[in-house]
Amino acid sequence: MDTVNLKKLAAELGLSPSTISRALRDSHEISKKTKDRVKALAEKLDFRPNPHASSLRQNKSKTIAVIMPEIENNFFAQVINGVESVAQKKGYHVLIYLTHEDFEKEKAILQMLRNGRVDGLMISISNSTKSSEHLKSCQEAGLPMVFFDRICENIDVPIIATDDIDSSFRATEHLLKSGCRHITHLSMSDALSISKGRQAGYNKALEKYKLSRYSSIIECSSDDEKNRQIIRKLLLRKQRPDGIFASVEKLAINTYEVCRELKIEIPATLKVVSFSNLTAAALFHPPLTTVVQPAYDIGKEAANILFRIIDKKVLSRQEKKIIIPSTLVMRASTN
Amino acid sequence: MDTVNLKKLAAELGLSPSTISRALRDSHEISKKTKDRVKALAEKLDFRPNPHASSLRQNKSKTIAVIMPEIENNFFAQVINGVESVAQKKGYHVLIYLTHEDFEKEKAILQMLRNGRVDGLMISISNSTKSSEHLKSCQEAGLPMVFFDRICENIDVPIIATDDIDSSFRATEHLLKSGCRHITHLSMSDALSISKGRQAGYNKALEKYKLSRYSSIIECSSDDEKNRQIIRKLLLRKQRPDGIFASVEKLAINTYEVCRELKIEIPATLKVVSFSNLTAAALFHPPLTTVVQPAYDIGKEAANILFRIIDKKVLSRQEKKIIIPSTLVMRASTN
Repeated sequence: MDTVNLKKLAAELGLSPSTISRALRDSHEISKKTKDRVKALAEKLDFRPNPHASSLRQNKSKTIAVIMPEIENNFFAQVINGVESVAQKKGYHVLIYLTHEDFEKEKAILQMLRNGRVDGLMISISNSTKSSEHLKSCQEAGLPMVFFDRICENIDVPIIATDDIDSSFRATEHLLKSGCRHITHLSMSDALSISKGRQAGYNKALEKYKLSRYSSIIECSSDDEKNRQIIRKLLLRKQRPDGIFASVEKLAINTYEVCRELKIEIPATLKVVSFSNLTAAALFHPPLTTVVQPAYDIGKEAANILFRIIDKKVLSRQEKKIIIPSTLVMRASTN
Repeated sequence: MDTVNLKKLAAELGLSPSTISRALRDSHEISKKTKDRVKALAEKLDFRPNPHASSLRQNKSKTIAVIMPEIENNFFAQVINGVESVAQKKGYHVLIYLTHEDFEKEKAILQMLRNGRVDGLMISISNSTKSSEHLKSCQEAGLPMVFFDRICENIDVPIIATDDIDSSFRATEHLLKSGCRHITHLSMSDALSISKGRQAGYNKALEKYKLSRYSSIIECSSDDEKNRQIIRKLLLRKQRPDGIFASVEKLAINTYEVCRELKIEIPATLKVVSFSNLTAAALFHPPLTTVVQPAYDIGKEAANILFRIIDKKVLSRQEKKIIIPSTLVMRASTN
């Protein structure tokens, strides 16, 4: 780009570039008369200070990064809306990085962000993340950081998440109260914090109803075709479940697809409940009962806490772990 | 952040910062022996060059911006996936800005990006964008730019979009062939390029079937409640339509909601087709016939063309206007 820079302004006015720079920053070292001359010409020539120069001077990039597994999921899209609403007010820019559930990619992204490109980052880890070394080195480098939704337990970093255990308990109890006895929980990677919490809530509900012997947790993946195979096999068993509790939207969609294929009626033969932030779930055949996460608020709070760290505020104990409850929305799939 | 910088490395080795910098960039002016010493210490101290310093030196930010109306729509989420796949290979970072269909916000974002923060931008304009001055000044400032999906016609900027006229023609013809005679087209803001194209395709199909006298186009908005009121009024008319062609997913969802409320049966009483990239449309009651846009490819091509401009390649006529066709996926809502 052929833009007007400090040097051109300086040459035009017969001043030094540093005088121009200080005049534009309203420095007390420069006389009002000079400031007025500089500002008038800057305006005339449509001069804009280079953001990399001011980032370098202030040691601030005015940018935060959001690192997450995917974007084609309403949960993450709503989180971004929340983050963006806060960042915009603070005059910050938002970089988005997708890991596509790939640990290597996640490591590479963090590695790249350690050198001052961003003032802070928020991350929801991938389901293949096996260690936390990459997160620890960012933390040790002093980069402000928060976890949202999918957290890493063995690092002291603020957490913004939903009440996975309690909301899973409520979803499972709702299936039990609707008459289900053999409920299968379709889970994501066992390594994920949210998987552990959701499994715990499911088992807690079975315990309360003295049905722990029927606990059945199946680990699925992000591969739709593989998931459908797993669900098909499950639903063709002699002793097939009468309820499915899906830990993520994708698995409920796969369940609906297989039921349609095998002509299994929901809710008559199989009841289904799922974590999901898809508003169109109400239009499914039958409408899907969902655990709706406070995605927008999770994004907003995560950004608020991140900016508090960037601004070097001391966080209270409450601010280090923010849990926002999910809501069970009952629809015909569990009727 | 307390990071190792060039000065610290220089002091440690008794060299000048500029020697360190040139050694790390493998300059031929520096001896192999010195380079090896510098690199060994840089590795030991985990030194990472400051990206703002190199941006300033190279006059490259290694960052592109994607400006779009919203993110809670699978179309835009898939576009980002496409952009990201290309940017990642080029070693570029992606900034996301949402206008929320607000012209003032769009102007403010472009204004902010004119000073070198990004090497280029791709934009899908908001439905309230009334003039193109803000786009023209970015173009005049020499900022590489492409339009995707929602374009601005009076500026010479490369375009990556779908075949709005043809795919709308096919969707409308499909309704006509399914027996509809009174088809209402639910449109977004009349000012949008895509609205104009979709309206033209709709009218072209009616003309072909000599039904132009029944042309009925209603302008809706991004407000769900207002849209439902409009659709409710339409479906309670004595002469109500027997087909709805929704220009965006949101309007199909609003139509389904009102039909459920008024107990109007789809497809028996009303047939529905819509532009939509929601895979779950197949699970709707009844499954929704959709015009699926090549969102991922639009994102990929837009990024490819943007990088060609950034790399100062001369674009061919074909590259200045890339139209990727949409696909009509027929389901029960038009049966």
